[in-house]
Amino acid sequence: MRAVVFENKERVAVKEVNAPRLQHPLDALVRVHLAGICGSDLHLYHGKIPVLPGSVLGHEFVGQVEAVGEGIQDLQPGDWVVGPFHIACGTCPYCRRHQYNLCERGGVYGYGPMFGNLQGAQAEILRVPFSNVNLRKLPPNLSPERAIFAGDILSTAYGGLIQGQLRPGDSVAVIGAGPVGLMAIEVAQVLGASKILAIDRIPERLERAASLGAIPINAEQENPVRRVRSETNDEGPDLVLEAVGGAATLSLALEMVRPGGRVSAVGVDNAPSFPFPLASGLVKDLTFRIGLANVHLYIDAVLALLASGRLQPERIVSHYLPLEEAPRGYELFDRKEALKVLLVVRG
Amino acid sequence: MRAVVFENKERVAVKEVNAPRLQHPLDALVRVHLAGICGSDLHLYHGKIPVLPGSVLGHEFVGQVEAVGEGIQDLQPGDWVVGPFHIACGTCPYCRRHQYNLCERGGVYGYGPMFGNLQGAQAEILRVPFSNVNLRKLPPNLSPERAIFAGDILSTAYGGLIQGQLRPGDSVAVIGAGPVGLMAIEVAQVLGASKILAIDRIPERLERAASLGAIPINAEQENPVRRVRSETNDEGPDLVLEAVGGAATLSLALEMVRPGGRVSAVGVDNAPSFPFPLASGLVKDLTFRIGLANVHLYIDAVLALLASGRLQPERIVSHYLPLEEAPRGYELFDRKEALKVLLVVRG
Amino acid sequence: MRAVVFENKERVAVKEVNAPRLQHPLDALVRVHLAGICGSDLHLYHGKIPVLPGSVLGHEFVGQVEAVGEGIQDLQPGDWVVGPFHIACGTCPYCRRHQYNLCERGGVYGYGPMFGNLQGAQAEILRVPFSNVNLRKLPPNLSPERAIFAGDILSTAYGGLIQGQLRPGDSVAVIGAGPVGLMAIEVAQVLGASKILAIDRIPERLERAASLGAIPINAEQENPVRRVRSETNDEGPDLVLEAVGGAATLSLALEMVRPGGRVSAVGVDNAPSFPFPLASGLVKDLTFRIGLANVHLYIDAVLALLASGRLQPERIVSHYLPLEEAPRGYELFDRKEALKVLLVVRG
Amino acid sequence: MRAVVFENKERVAVKEVNAPRLQHPLDALVRVHLAGICGSDLHLYHGKIPVLPGSVLGHEFVGQVEAVGEGIQDLQPGDWVVGPFHIACGTCPYCRRHQYNLCERGGVYGYGPMFGNLQGAQAEILRVPFSNVNLRKLPPNLSPERAIFAGDILSTAYGGLIQGQLRPGDSVAVIGAGPVGLMAIEVAQVLGASKILAIDRIPERLERAASLGAIPINAEQENPVRRVRSETNDEGPDLVLEAVGGAATLSLALEMVRPGGRVSAVGVDNAPSFPFPLASGLVKDLTFRIGLANVHLYIDAVLALLASGRLQPERIVSHYLPLEEAPRGYELFDRKEALKVLLVVRG
Repeated sequence: MRAVVFENKERVAVKEVNAPRLQHPLDALVRVHLAGICGSDLHLYHGKIPVLPGSVLGHEFVGQVEAVGEGIQDLQPGDWVVGPFHIACGTCPYCRRHQYNLCERGGVYGYGPMFGNLQGAQAEILRVPFSNVNLRKLPPNLSPERAIFAGDILSTAYGGLIQGQLRPGDSVAVIGAGPVGLMAIEVAQVLGASKILAIDRIPERLERAASLGAIPINAEQENPVRRVRSETNDEGPDLVLEAVGGAATLSLALEMVRPGGRVSAVGVDNAPSFPFPLASGLVKDLTFRIGLANVHLYIDAVLALLASGRLQPERIVSHYLPLEEAPRGYELFDRKEALKVLLVVRG
Repeated sequence: MRAVVFENKERVAVKEVNAPRLQHPLDALVRVHLAGICGSDLHLYHGKIPVLPGSVLGHEFVGQVEAVGEGIQDLQPGDWVVGPFHIACGTCPYCRRHQYNLCERGGVYGYGPMFGNLQGAQAEILRVPFSNVNLRKLPPNLSPERAIFAGDILSTAYGGLIQGQLRPGDSVAVIGAGPVGLMAIEVAQVLGASKILAIDRIPERLERAASLGAIPINAEQENPVRRVRSETNDEGPDLVLEAVGGAATLSLALEMVRPGGRVSAVGVDNAPSFPFPLASGLVKDLTFRIGLANVHLYIDAVLALLASGRLQPERIVSHYLPLEEAPRGYELFDRKEALKVLLVVRG
Repeated sequence: MRAVVFENKERVAVKEVNAPRLQHPLDALVRVHLAGICGSDLHLYHGKIPVLPGSVLGHEFVGQVEAVGEGIQDLQPGDWVVGPFHIACGTCPYCRRHQYNLCERGGVYGYGPMFGNLQGAQAEILRVPFSNVNLRKLPPNLSPERAIFAGDILSTAYGGLIQGQLRPGDSVAVIGAGPVGLMAIEVAQVLGASKILAIDRIPERLERAASLGAIPINAEQENPVRRVRSETNDEGPDLVLEAVGGAATLSLALEMVRPGGRVSAVGVDNAPSFPFPLASGLVKDLTFRIGLANVHLYIDAVLALLASGRLQPERIVSHYLPLEEAPRGYELFDRKEALKVLLVVRG
Repeated sequence: MRAVVFENKERVAVKEVNAPRLQHPLDALVRVHLAGICGSDLHLYHGKIPVLPGSVLGHEFVGQVEAVGEGIQDLQPGDWVVGPFHIACGTCPYCRRHQYNLCERGGVYGYGPMFGNLQGAQAEILRVPFSNVNLRKLPPNLSPERAIFAGDILSTAYGGLIQGQLRPGDSVAVIGAGPVGLMAIEVAQVLGASKILAIDRIPERLERAASLGAIPINAEQENPVRRVRSETNDEGPDLVLEAVGGAATLSLALEMVRPGGRVSAVGVDNAPSFPFPLASGLVKDLTFRIGLANVHLYIDAVLALLASGRLQPERIVSHYLPLEEAPRGYELFDRKEALKVLLVVRG
């Protein structure tokens, strides 16, 4: 089959590779229709996370069931499906606590040996282990273009806001108006935020944030803490979603949030630590959460909201490219010339 | 001062009455600008709830502080304020549990001797007891026409949905598309419902429900249970808000809701009981809540959502009438020729 | 193999029947060591719930894994296991909502054709479908005698209290001090109840309730509503757990609970309906939940509390009988001469 | 009146000072019977938190109402009362959110100009501002010796565990077995912890922790992370309560907690910051909360548990001293020769 493979730092190619087969009674094979290029794929692309040359990349997908193992009862060949970017087994102690993102048998598709050594989704066929847990049928009338977002960045944003305990009427600041941040703005509306403040340094992103209903704040041009306070009765927002990663923006988030507020960090960074404010934090009363998204927990609610049109994340897609043009897709996205690239594997 | 007084069954008049005075250090006097006529005022109007002739009616208001007792620190004369339709003391065991609607010293403005014997709000000046607890300043830029809804029907709808545990992505059925039901449709959008089904028998109400984003279902023309099921994957909605009152619609709600779903009843009725399904309820797994609204608990979130424009309940106002035309306002509303009447006490 | 089979109304026998086999990749076979006789088994015994003659009875068990299907990774032959009295598939829409008690493929072991037509557990070998979902390994040092309670009545009581939203410091009334009621008293202590009131009519049960820390109230001898009020600052308890079933005790529960309180019904009854108080309920503000237990959701917490000795439900066992004496066990239990019977299938 | 006053670093004295008077309609005067010496009083004693010489110290008290302002309806002279160590106004935006510990008009009794400049409680009479919010009547049969703990360290421990989202069945590690840590052990039992691990370096404290049901771990003698893991299925505890303060123990807490677990910090320290693990935290999925206790939110539940005898914190009192011996009490407590000192102001 054809698939996007890693060759070398900043070089990917579309090659012929062996198609996967069913290996376990709970496996499914999915014929991929659309596969996304995600911001976290760039960590591999730049060689920051190790992956062997020849490995198939990608973890965002939507497609149709091709075959299922004999332990699977809910899926039939031909069903349209989407799934979380990471897998879970459904039965380990973490899965039983519904903390699927901590599954002892977990892994991320196409993300190298540190993440379960799973085949990637930018390919004609994807093997999905524990497919009883890791696939969802598309509700009627939900287009694949929209549904694919449920598997990763939209649910990441959704989970980040829910785990930051977003309550109706809250004011929310989103630090970083990239794909995840834009998703968060859209989700925050649906979850009942009364005011959304978007902080970034790139004018185009801020324009898009504004078009989704956020108040844009350009941190190049004004002090974001001061501006955010003035927009929130001089208190600071109830919740800050940090969608960049790194010590500087986390410190900004903790400074900006109102006393008694919450900071939820979903941005990915390799910094070993950052200085958490202690004496001031004690007086201020802070709740801080950091973690990868627990997509399995939220994907059904997200799919319901997508099917009804309350969430329309496909609006951020800037490029639909045929699978064969994946190398160009990576380049465009890496140079920030594309906001979101979807690869059309099968038209 | 001028005020709307009850005279006799189906007769109200605008008369000169004694203006109230501060009686307790926590009292405030409010100069009323707008006062609403509420569906529950009609219970008095029709003589179903006793009230002495000459009593001032009304419990929906927005206005400006005229004077405060010496125990009040947060309010100044001139402040624009709104308050819940019922009062709470803030310190009894129920208030300390934040169940303000059960306050041991509670009462409803202008609702007769069974409800605390408080002066009504359809008057030039309203005395507000425990004004530290029972008034909220309007956020900047919030118009009185919009703010008045926070004190009663909007917060009733909001509380009914929250206490029915509305979760993002849920499907919601609203039985009754009168003023409270229409508020509930608007609120359900803001709280993240994926699908809203409105059930009524009056085409105009259903049209309005549809214009707010609900799927209208005319119970005269089709079986509402069957239709609701077909709109919700043959399951039934996750949550049913009953906004009519009475045994028939409550039974409908419990029949309609999906297994494991929730029914929240906010409609007011005098029926002593209704037959709760027992054997089928046990298998179906039902959660049922019935109660008057706990407005104090939700009013700040509601005001934030009003101030940001996410809720625009003033769209349902059909008539702004001068105070002197209150009798006509009651008649129009009673004959269902008005959807919502606001009395302009002070222009 | 040997098993307890239903013969006729009020007649069970121990007979030789065909041993079950693995039928599906997710099945497991369990060699049963202990099997309980449950209050709900008496519904079959008395012919109130239909079951074919020759069917194997029972749904409470603890034992060791004998064999597993090829889709099972977490279980090995020899593992000690316990499981909920009802099965769930783990993947249907209800299971994905974690409402396992509403599973579309659900059923109760040994409970006849209306409940999934599954083989019962009072047998040497039990086939467990979807054993990835329906079995739990015993934590180290947890005895089978104690562990068996996690699968049914203890988790039923636990779930009834949790779903009744028991909060630390609450006062709790338990109506019915039979096995489930006694479990509830023990659980309520662990969940932080400040005061537990046990209502029954049988002195021996009330003595046992008192020995577990409850205040016993004999409804034959005093007015339970009045007594409960006087024990709770003249308010009524925060939560009432109804563990009898039937219109009379449900009405009592709704009358007894304090305004703004909660009633959770776990008692099983065939009455079609009961009169729910409407006008008074609206003023009182009631939350009412009725449903079968969602054991899967609570069993891991329950097992942790059993393993640490915080829950010691085996104290209510009155009789350990060999499997061959099952007929006598049913008789003793039916005549209320036994409080709890465990059948020793394999010593 | 007689009162304990700060004189100089490590010197307090009992002196005659002016008795307070009612200043506001919501004030109350309390005749103090017992006043505690708290660990946080030592910060003043050592000059780490500024307080003017001659200021009255102390913030733990129980006593009887002496007089109330004219705005107070719930209290009568002679009522036995206890109150939180800090005050709240009940009406500012933070109080309306029920975040009383962040009250805009807040302050700590006897804690100097940085904390509201309020008179202390180690005195014959205490003025309580906003006494409608800041006092609670003792339930019948609750002794003053037990009740005094509701106002500070017991509710601090309770709040720390609740805000750390302690769930029934959880394993809990408590770092620091001083007075707050010991309270936390007692509370964790009542909240349903399945296992409690107490970490300290002082054998006497660990013995006492063990007597309350915790597993004692001496960090001098063994690696606490390794030991805690081995006690929790090699995972780490679900919740860590940090009751020491400071970077070292906070880092230990974050290292020790299981993936997906929670750390709640209630220990007070002046360190400006500590290094929060970032890359590992993201993978581990951490929730971290730091803040002063929100006593007002929990005190009613705590009082109910004290009244019923489920909590018996007075067991940790090592010394009851007459007010005149307060200087000796401070010395004993500072030298850790006393575990808890209560000053008997009025016998």
